[in-house]
Order: sequence, then structure tokens, then C-alpha cells
Amino acid sequence: MTDSHAPLPPRPSDLSPTLELAFDLIERPSVTPDDLDCQALMIKRLEAIGFEITRLPFGDVENFWAVRGHHGPVMAFAGHTDVVPTGPEANWQYPPFSPCIDADGFLCGRGAADMKGSLAAMLTATERFVTAYPDHEGRIAFLITSDEEGPAVHGTRAVVEYLREHHERLDYCIVGEPSSTDYAGDVIKNGRRGSLGAVMRVRGVQGHVAYPHLARNPIHEAAPALTALTAEHWDDGNEFFPATSFQISNIRGGTGATNVIPGELEVVFNFRYSTALTADDLKRRTHEILAAHGLDVEIDWTLNGEPFLTPEGALVDAAIHGVARALGRKPVLSTSGGTSDGRFIATLGTQVVELGPVNATIHKIDERVMASDLDQLSSAYEHILEYLFVPTTREATA
Amino acid sequence: MTDSHAPLPPRPSDLSPTLELAFDLIERPSVTPDDLDCQALMIKRLEAIGFEITRLPFGDVENFWAVRGHHGPVMAFAGHTDVVPTGPEANWQYPPFSPCIDADGFLCGRGAADMKGSLAAMLTATERFVTAYPDHEGRIAFLITSDEEGPAVHGTRAVVEYLREHHERLDYCIVGEPSSTDYAGDVIKNGRRGSLGAVMRVRGVQGHVAYPHLARNPIHEAAPALTALTAEHWDDGNEFFPATSFQISNIRGGTGATNVIPGELEVVFNFRYSTALTADDLKRRTHEILAAHGLDVEIDWTLNGEPFLTPEGALVDAAIHGVARALGRKPVLSTSGGTSDGRFIATLGTQVVELGPVNATIHKIDERVMASDLDQLSSAYEHILEYLFVPTTREATA
Repeated sequence: MTDSHAPLPPRPSDLSPTLELAFDLIERPSVTPDDLDCQALMIKRLEAIGFEITRLPFGDVENFWAVRGHHGPVMAFAGHTDVVPTGPEANWQYPPFSPCIDADGFLCGRGAADMKGSLAAMLTATERFVTAYPDHEGRIAFLITSDEEGPAVHGTRAVVEYLREHHERLDYCIVGEPSSTDYAGDVIKNGRRGSLGAVMRVRGVQGHVAYPHLARNPIHEAAPALTALTAEHWDDGNEFFPATSFQISNIRGGTGATNVIPGELEVVFNFRYSTALTADDLKRRTHEILAAHGLDVEIDWTLNGEPFLTPEGALVDAAIHGVARALGRKPVLSTSGGTSDGRFIATLGTQVVELGPVNATIHKIDERVMASDLDQLSSAYEHILEYLFVPTTREATA
Repeated sequence: MTDSHAPLPPRPSDLSPTLELAFDLIERPSVTPDDLDCQALMIKRLEAIGFEITRLPFGDVENFWAVRGHHGPVMAFAGHTDVVPTGPEANWQYPPFSPCIDADGFLCGRGAADMKGSLAAMLTATERFVTAYPDHEGRIAFLITSDEEGPAVHGTRAVVEYLREHHERLDYCIVGEPSSTDYAGDVIKNGRRGSLGAVMRVRGVQGHVAYPHLARNPIHEAAPALTALTAEHWDDGNEFFPATSFQISNIRGGTGATNVIPGELEVVFNFRYSTALTADDLKRRTHEILAAHGLDVEIDWTLNGEPFLTPEGALVDAAIHGVARALGRKPVLSTSGGTSDGRFIATLGTQVVELGPVNATIHKIDERVMASDLDQLSSAYEHILEYLFVPTTREATA
């Protein structure tokens, strides 16, 4: 099938260390949950600059935790070596696991933007920083998983539980998710909405449509309650979050026969919610609305992720500083979009931000990212470390 | 499997002609659309007493039209020789196509109540009547099909179209459907509600639940409209009909994924409606309600049957007279329940009533009907013929 691809541009001989490492990572087709020695490559480099490594495999997922330094606050880079599937490789301009720099100056390949480019930038930033400040304040850490794109049960969630049980300190965390929209560094995510899912079964009494007085139609009984749920004003959001939203994703009732009133209706819905309320608030208010309409219901709730927010503090300041210095840009703080592994890390009380390259091509064919953006991103990460762990830098900024 | 049945009671030697014929019809396992010579048996008997027969097969359905007499109003007995399937025969107390009289005096077998018992009663009533009044006024007819329980396309509907095209007169019709509830003759159906079905597709715009502003959720948009439709007061019914009812039988929307807002919702609903309004009224008002809620919808309507009503007149009077004379009971006029072939016949401008035995066991296992009820039903049919076609009878009653 490679016949259909464009001729692969030769690998440039003058690649930066960040791009060299990104090439090496992209060459490994580490589709979730496979790591294919991406982590071994990172671990070798981290050990070489004094990191202590703890490998944390859970199930079929490879994870590791690495720390350099012995006291003071901990700043961790978090990310994942796994990538989403390519779809039909023949549809790609270049083979997805043969990284190259295209004529526009973009690094091409699956994972270039999400998020092997970020991993490379974190690692080279750390290498430069510890070379410049071998006796830096605080501690630098890496929290790396191979299951962010999959079930996400044995990945960051499990590592976080390990850290909690071992009373590991984690003050700051930069997640390398591609947070940028149009230009590298234009958006930093300083939080994410919570996600609360539900499967609701409304019970009625089955019967014949010609004898409705002998039946109880759960669709009829549910319609006003669903109207009330969709019209409900759950909150106003707050400074950092849009208002909580309620969406029904699936509804199903009926036997298929046109003359039978069904005995049950199933409704699947989801809240994306702000920090202005809690999952328990949403459950309670949902049940109150349903009870007010006299519905006989049973709900299975699934808390996909609590919301998290890092409204202000040293990490946000550091991230804004790093972007300004490396990219000459003032980033916007945002909490929009789906969930990320930040939701798990924030449960440790950690300040969490997501800062990574432009996300325009993630999960698509011909995933790519401006090669020079990765060098600048590495520089931004380095400036963040300086801001947090080199007092003169922070004081000069203040 | 017959090992599981109770020993079959022997066929009594002193059966009435009505029960003899009912036995002969039930022995033929004429599951829709098979007739298995039930009609041939009836035709042979009708020809013997001077009926002219027109066989009207359409598709795989046997039908016939039979008339005796040459002038004056036409009174037709209408019915069907087909029966619904038995389900697992082993579950029956007696084999369903081995008619017998059980210890309670009931005629047992598939079709005993719906409606081979009625067919036998109609035929023997006619035999006695024409023997007593060989030169009766008016004309007696039979309209018999083998597809009332099935698609009902090539049965009575097609025969009625034949009669319409041939300008056949049809003034009165007694349909032998089991109209009685607790006792034979306690209920006469003098009409049936109409049935209007619909498949509605509500269009929205598919999207991700995290970005609802980029989507349009058809479930959310439909909920208030469905609430309005279920709350709508369509009419008050009238003297003969309960109020029109609206029922949603099926609803389906969603991709199965819990994070996707679906692009379409399908809702299947049905009206059972009175003669206080028309199918066009219902369509117009439904579209008005949907438009008031701004829905983007497409509806496929199916008119399953227009309502019919025979509020008063010679046939209702005759039926009440016949029940009173044969069963000593004053029947209630009712338009409740599902649809019947009466809906097709009434389109000829015919006065139609349904009069038959108790319907408690129809379409169930161990279908049965009190044997003596069939003899009394035959007597009631005979009295109806006398009332309509023997002036002295009618005048004596008036």
C-alpha cells in the first residue's frame, strides 16, 4: 500500500535534539496500549541526567514515574506514549509511522501533535535545564503512560493512586496535551469540565394502543420530565467555566410493533459541568425534577471525571511566562473541550495546566505539527522550569 | 407432542346443526391466509338453499360473495374462515384443530370464538330462515374472506372494491366478530374508531456532547413538542365514541455512543380517533403543534382505517331485537376496541354492526366458547333476518 504514498522526504541531517527525539518516538507504532519501547528511550535519557525511575506497569499498560532532586516542590511533566489508530494508512500522504519534515516545514506522522512532539520537547527542555542548573531547587518529575487514548483505567488514574498511597508530593503538573488552537501557545488549558453520565430507565406498563387506560406509556410520562431537564438552568458557570450543560445522547423505547405501548423507556444523558456545583448536586436535582413529574425511574450514574481548575498561582504564572518568553505570545486560559488525564492528577491537589502544540490535526489522517513549534515549545517548558526553580528568574519577572 | 394433551372427549352424537358445522370448520387448520376448503363447505350449503356464488380470489386469499333473492335491500353476513396461529400446540389442553365439547359445555378449538362459531351460526340461521320464508323480502348475502387476521389487503378490502365497481347494493351487514364481553349478546359493536399511524423523523445536527453549541439535539427539540402532543385535548368524542387518543409506540434516537449528540430522532405514533374529527384534522393539528415548536420534521402517515358508526336505524334495531328474543338480554352499543373489517364495508354506506360470541379467549391458547351460546347466536341472527325481511315481525315489535 505504500505505493500510494508521496515519496518520503529524506531525514534532515541538522535536526534539533527535540525533533531527533520526536522522529525516534514516532517511528515506534505505539497504538494504545502498546508502548513499543518509547518509554525505554525516554527512561535511558532521563537516567543519564540523574532521574530515579519507578516503572509502574498495570495490566497491559506501561507507565513510569521519574524524579530528579531530593527536596522542595515537585513539578511533573505528564504525557502518554500511545497514539490513536491511523485508519487506512493508504489515505495518508506519507506513511504514518515514517516521520518526515514536509515542504511546509511540518513534522508529519501519527503522534506528531498528540503527543510525541510534546514528550520530546519536555525531555530536551529538562536536559538543557539540568545541564544549566545541576543543583536546581525543587524536584522535576515525569508521569508517563501508554493508555491515555484508550480505557484510561490502568494509566494515569492508576499511577495517581500509586502516588497517593506512597504519599508522593506533586505540586505542579504540565500535561503535554495539544492545547493550542491556531498558533503554538495561544491557549493554555487551566482546567476541564467534569463529565457525569447516566443511563435512566423509565418504567411504565405495557399495553395495546387501543386500550391506553390499561397501560402507562413511559414515553408520554417522560416527555414533560425530559422537557424540564433540557430547560433546566443548572448554573451560570463561573469566571473559568461555561455554564453546565445537559445533553441526551440516546433514547430508546418501543417493541417495534406500532400497536403496542412499551413498558419501558431508556434515556442516556450526560452532564458537562463546571466547578460551580458538584456531581452530587446534579444527581440530587435530576432526581428532584423526575420525582416532581412522578416518574418511576432507575438511574445508573457514571462519574467519568470530576472537573478540575487551576485558577491562579505559581504554575499558571510560570506557564504564561514560558509562553511569553519562548513564543512571544500571551496565552488565553481556557477550560473548554473534553476531558484529559489532568482530571486524575488534579485529585492530588496539584496545580495542573495543559500546554502543547496546535491540535488541528489530532486523531486525523496526515497528523502534523509545525517543526519549529516543537523547538519553541521545548524552550517554553525550559522557561517554566526556570521560573519555578530558579529564584532569580522569578524575581526578575515580578 | 399430543401425549401432553388431555384425552379428547368423544364427539357428541346429538350436536345441533350449528355445532356440527362449527366442528367441521374447526377441524380445518386454516391459519391465515389458508382457507382449506372451509369456504367450499359453506358454499355447498348456500348453493343448496338457492344462493348465487361469486368466488373472488385475490392473491393467495380466498373470498366469496353469495346472494339469495333478486330485489330489495341487501343484508350481508360478513366473516372470515382464517384463524390466528396456535402457538405451541403442546400448551393446549386439547389439540387446537380437534374440536370437542369440554366438561364445562364449551366448544374448544382454534377459531371456536373467532370466528368459525359465528360462521356456523350465520349459515344455520339462514338455512332455517329460507326454509320458513322461501320467498322472503330483500336479499341475503354472505361476504367471506380468508384474510382478516393477516395483512387484510386481499380480503374484505378487495371484495368491497369489487362490489363498489360492480355497483352491488349492500344496505346492512352483520360482522360475526366476537363482540360480547361477559355474556353472549351483552355488547354489540355499532362502530369502531379510526386508526391513523405516523412515523416522524425529527432532524437535528449531530455533534459532540462537549460542544453542544455546534450541534442541534433533536431529542431536546422534540421533548416539548411530544409533551404538547401527549397533553393535547383532541376532542371530547361524542355520544358513541370515547375521546380521540394519541399514543407514541416507539421512539429511537442516538448512535449508541454516550458522547455523541444524534442527528435524528424517530418517533412512531398512532391516533385512535372518533367521528368527531377526521384524519385530515389530526394531521393538520399535529403539524401545527410541531411547527409551533420549530421542529424540522418529516412524517409518513398511514391511514389504517377510517372510523365508522351506525348510530341508529333498521339494522341496530334488528340486532337489539334479535338479541332480546334469542338471549333475553338488552345489549350495550359500543365502539371500543381495535379495528375490524367493518371499517372497509362501511365505506359503501352500509349500516354495519358486529355481533358475535364472548371474546375472552380469542387469539389465546385453549380458545373456547360456550356451545349453547352458538345455538342462541344462530337464533339471534335468524330473528334479525325476520325483523328486516318479514314485515309482520317488525310491525309486531314496533
